[in-house]
Amino acid sequence: VPLPEKSLIARIRRMAASSNPGRPRNSSVLAGIGDDCAVLRLTGTPRNPRDTLVTTDFSLENVHFRRDWHSPESVGHRCLARGLSDIAAMGGDPVAAFLSLAVPRDLPQLWINRFLGSLIDLARKHSVTLCGGDTAESPAGILADIAVVGTVPQGKALMRSGARPGDRIYVSGQLGGSAAAIEELMTKPRRKPKPQDYLRHFFPEPRIELGRILREKGLASAMIDTSDGLSTDLAHLCEESGVGAEVQAEAIPRAAVGKPRREVDLELALHGGEDYELLFTAPRGKSVPSRIAGVPITQIGTITRGRKILLRSQTRARQELKPQGWEHFRH
Amino acid sequence: VPLPEKSLIARIRRMAASSNPGRPRNSSVLAGIGDDCAVLRLTGTPRNPRDTLVTTDFSLENVHFRRDWHSPESVGHRCLARGLSDIAAMGGDPVAAFLSLAVPRDLPQLWINRFLGSLIDLARKHSVTLCGGDTAESPAGILADIAVVGTVPQGKALMRSGARPGDRIYVSGQLGGSAAAIEELMTKPRRKPKPQDYLRHFFPEPRIELGRILREKGLASAMIDTSDGLSTDLAHLCEESGVGAEVQAEAIPRAAVGKPRREVDLELALHGGEDYELLFTAPRGKSVPSRIAGVPITQIGTITRGRKILLRSQTRARQELKPQGWEHFRH
Repeated sequence: VPLPEKSLIARIRRMAASSNPGRPRNSSVLAGIGDDCAVLRLTGTPRNPRDTLVTTDFSLENVHFRRDWHSPESVGHRCLARGLSDIAAMGGDPVAAFLSLAVPRDLPQLWINRFLGSLIDLARKHSVTLCGGDTAESPAGILADIAVVGTVPQGKALMRSGARPGDRIYVSGQLGGSAAAIEELMTKPRRKPKPQDYLRHFFPEPRIELGRILREKGLASAMIDTSDGLSTDLAHLCEESGVGAEVQAEAIPRAAVGKPRREVDLELALHGGEDYELLFTAPRGKSVPSRIAGVPITQIGTITRGRKILLRSQTRARQELKPQGWEHFRH
Repeated sequence: VPLPEKSLIARIRRMAASSNPGRPRNSSVLAGIGDDCAVLRLTGTPRNPRDTLVTTDFSLENVHFRRDWHSPESVGHRCLARGLSDIAAMGGDPVAAFLSLAVPRDLPQLWINRFLGSLIDLARKHSVTLCGGDTAESPAGILADIAVVGTVPQGKALMRSGARPGDRIYVSGQLGGSAAAIEELMTKPRRKPKPQDYLRHFFPEPRIELGRILREKGLASAMIDTSDGLSTDLAHLCEESGVGAEVQAEAIPRAAVGKPRREVDLELALHGGEDYELLFTAPRGKSVPSRIAGVPITQIGTITRGRKILLRSQTRARQELKPQGWEHFRH
């Protein structure tokens, strides 16, 4: 009797292969699904040697997504986007993805096909090959864990720890759009928000190209992606760099969501997570364009010598900006 | 309010750091836990360039382990051993591990400490650095997924696909010992088997050194680890190589388990999984020692031109050996 696990591997393998007709897999991939390990050649050339980047991210049902809120396409896209965003935050080039997927015995095959199809579409868009993973029957709910491997020229990875007092703080795109979708889903369960009105939540585009350009041009001194929310991610960056920051409330670019479009509240832009934008610092002297790779770039503050993160506002007294973690949603 | 996820990351980070006093992390690790990605330098030297190996493996409560059967130390050890065994099966050197861990809100901290301590002990033994991962609150049960990254000299990875007709088939150690523990646990729930009487189940040693020597000496033409059971893993190797096999029943080394020691039945040795031994082929002319790196090596059969896998026995008629998948246990 073939195992459910084995047939699922066979299905993933078939889909990964057939979804890529006429397109060779990433040239760094020597062997993908079908052996004990994937084999990758990540060295670069002797004149341009590369370092390797690795990140892993869970996507758990009722923690990171809900089946009644998120289509299989959205779940598959977000699953891989989380990992790609981490590669972007290092200024790296993604190469390969590894999907560990456990599903309940009664999950319709159509759900898996739509999930995988969407994940593989995003992978292909970034020349990433699905190279392996693991499968199992899940005791409860859909459980996915994605590992993404990428490369960056040796010694050029953009770390969180490079920010220095006087550096300017920038953020890409707009903030709070993803959390706004969760707020809609929680407060108006009857009227589901349309994915096209909340794209940053349902189908976030990882900022791979932007991250690569910031690294190539040597613009950024430190970088992180906004997965936990600005207040938390800026705290991480400052902690790793041993610095503080001052942020101007009115400068923070707030997402426009819904139909008709409305701008999200400052609180969501400050603390809402899962926007997967890039938050980076650049030395004062560097000229940072207002748009890179089609993405708007906004200066929102300055790195300071202290260890606190302060929020300045034209209408309120200066206050400390405490990290207010993003707990996903509670079911 | 600090997040449960964040405090768990902090705890893992502290344990990974403090468990390694006086021992530098693997020299290939430039940056571990604490940034968006880990940064690894896996190139080797210009004269000895390396390829990269990646594998991921689930360890899910009530699928791969049970809390009333397995101590936290056993779960942590087995979690990493699964990944290390995949690296061994390619003849590789492991470098870094990435642990994605989701735990229920009410899981005692002591469980996590014991689990992590044991996992990190095994990592240290093989000069592997715990470099990152993800954490979350689990909706149900303990969920772990381990990714292991390793390297091998360029072009030297031992694949499943290299077996040729006439090659001899070898297996390391003994088979069936892990499944025997599950059989005890299922049939005699009152009398729990002692870990020391079933070490291959509770604390399997991945065959890293053996795999490395087989690769260095150019002995093996194809290799796989016995995670699913001999009948299934040999079928994988034959399928990838496009060959068949003939196995001699009496030659299969059967594990001795329990107290007093008894040899397991042939059925367990043929189909029982999770022994994490190495199953490999070697060309007829190669002289394979009967013991390598302290591990007994036994010839069990021959690769054939056909596509079937046949089991020969002195007492029974020749029969086809069908893969009888290893479904872990059902709860």
